[in-house]
Amino acid sequence: MKIALIGLGSVGRGVAEMITKKDLGLTITGLADSKSGAMDPKGLDIPTLLTHKKKNGHCGDPDISTLDIIKKADYDALVEVTPTNALSGEPAIGYIKAALARKKHVVTSNKGPIALANKELRTMAQENGVALRYEATVAGAIPIMHTLEHGLAGNDILALYGVLNGTCNYILTRMADEGLTYEQALMEAREMGYAEADPTYDVKGIDASIKLVILANNIWGHDVRLTDVDCTGIDLLTPDALRLADDEGCTIRLIAEAIPRKNILRVSPRIIEKSHPLVVDGTLNALTLETDMAKEITLIGRGAGSVETASAIIGDLLYIKDRYDGSA
Amino acid sequence: MKIALIGLGSVGRGVAEMITKKDLGLTITGLADSKSGAMDPKGLDIPTLLTHKKKNGHCGDPDISTLDIIKKADYDALVEVTPTNALSGEPAIGYIKAALARKKHVVTSNKGPIALANKELRTMAQENGVALRYEATVAGAIPIMHTLEHGLAGNDILALYGVLNGTCNYILTRMADEGLTYEQALMEAREMGYAEADPTYDVKGIDASIKLVILANNIWGHDVRLTDVDCTGIDLLTPDALRLADDEGCTIRLIAEAIPRKNILRVSPRIIEKSHPLVVDGTLNALTLETDMAKEITLIGRGAGSVETASAIIGDLLYIKDRYDGSA
Repeated sequence: MKIALIGLGSVGRGVAEMITKKDLGLTITGLADSKSGAMDPKGLDIPTLLTHKKKNGHCGDPDISTLDIIKKADYDALVEVTPTNALSGEPAIGYIKAALARKKHVVTSNKGPIALANKELRTMAQENGVALRYEATVAGAIPIMHTLEHGLAGNDILALYGVLNGTCNYILTRMADEGLTYEQALMEAREMGYAEADPTYDVKGIDASIKLVILANNIWGHDVRLTDVDCTGIDLLTPDALRLADDEGCTIRLIAEAIPRKNILRVSPRIIEKSHPLVVDGTLNALTLETDMAKEITLIGRGAGSVETASAIIGDLLYIKDRYDGSA
Repeated sequence: MKIALIGLGSVGRGVAEMITKKDLGLTITGLADSKSGAMDPKGLDIPTLLTHKKKNGHCGDPDISTLDIIKKADYDALVEVTPTNALSGEPAIGYIKAALARKKHVVTSNKGPIALANKELRTMAQENGVALRYEATVAGAIPIMHTLEHGLAGNDILALYGVLNGTCNYILTRMADEGLTYEQALMEAREMGYAEADPTYDVKGIDASIKLVILANNIWGHDVRLTDVDCTGIDLLTPDALRLADDEGCTIRLIAEAIPRKNILRVSPRIIEKSHPLVVDGTLNALTLETDMAKEITLIGRGAGSVETASAIIGDLLYIKDRYDGSA
């Protein structure tokens, strides 16, 4: 199956490297970073292009744009891994639409378009007879979308609870384990590369809320938005609060929860028993699904990382390859 | 899709009840318990048959055998949930073969046939162009087979570690939490209905070993057998051992592990950090897959139970329905 890959940040590089390294029946025929593009219907020489990017800051021809790749390259599935814009979803929404309009499958790790325009994009994919998959938008390497689609098929999902932001989980783990203040733990997270210079998006719970919106819309077909989430971050937590929780055999985690029967869509720091499966350490993510038949199912894994996120994207690509194999 | 259901123990009843209760597009057209059978190509009246079984000890006509149902009923997929025979796999192997020979899909929760004759049965299914699925054989409601097949597609599975026996995990949890002896905890497990009168199969690690064999053969296509597993049970563990582990922030769990690169296929009590995702409480099961791209993925859920196991079987049935929908 032929792949056009747009976006060559950490995730894009991971996808390019894994497709090149592993014998998966996938060939990259189009490639774009923010400054240039390259295409070859017979398959691009990825190692050479990546080396070129390292040396020169761009991978291909500066006269070829991302949209040129999407509109002109010869491919079956677009992998859209450009930077997330959580406010407008653009330009990624436009990229995805352009591919769907060409009847190309789309796999994305981009939370913006899926949180903001999921219904519209899904409808468009359906009308064009192609797949739109976004396993990588939530909880990195954890195959939560596949689990909902197949593993728990037939179950009613009654509620979901998740630790969906690795930065917050790292900070809370360090505050609990070492008695650090929020500021100390945040500084450490920055030094480890787990927090950005401006951590607002993570520590205020916005990132977790966006993922909760994606999950809720996916599971229940609702059309909830970021503004529907009752959101509290972790930036006002004190070491005292964690100590008090510890005295009761508990700890504090930033929990995203969706419970339709109680009309709850919330991200907030919660006191939770240490032995609870959702209490994971460091930057791990975790999700518990409450269902009618399987009861509680918990999935734990890495919520970020170049190759870890590539795992989710490649899982989606192989699913499309398997399902629509005539196109390859 | 039409279903023939053979076996009306706890799991069979769960499957029958869920198919009847939920609108899944599944119709039971054949039903057999150990003493009788019933069939109707238009769909059986399941509530009436289950009530009849409760009153009279059998669900249908005593002159209709299980093999009659398999060979004569009008169905698309056989659900084989008869009792497990871990030594010979029979009569279930014969049941499954009879259905495959008729080009019927087979879904089973029966560990015997899959541990003993997986390769032969899979080949036979393939030759007949039908599916053989067995999500329910390992870890109850946890969709481990679906995760391996789809969620982690493209990953190399490097190792797996699992808590695969709820009885042992319950006993170890109680010994650790309450300082009980093995004998006391076992007695409690019996009272709770978590351990059988003869607990050998569970506490000696045999049940976990069988599940490990099924997983290893599924993942790596090896043809390992129960006798290849280096197996130690939990029946010689003392409260002292658990106390010593506790002093180090650890506990003891019966871990099944398969690590091909180290030639390890082992079930044994292991000292493990309490914060490790595999440390689950009570009768829960848990599995960690170590992979090349996604790294470690852990799944936690209920390892047994009527409706919980039905969840796994129904997931398999809906997968078949989705994939082979021409047959419905």
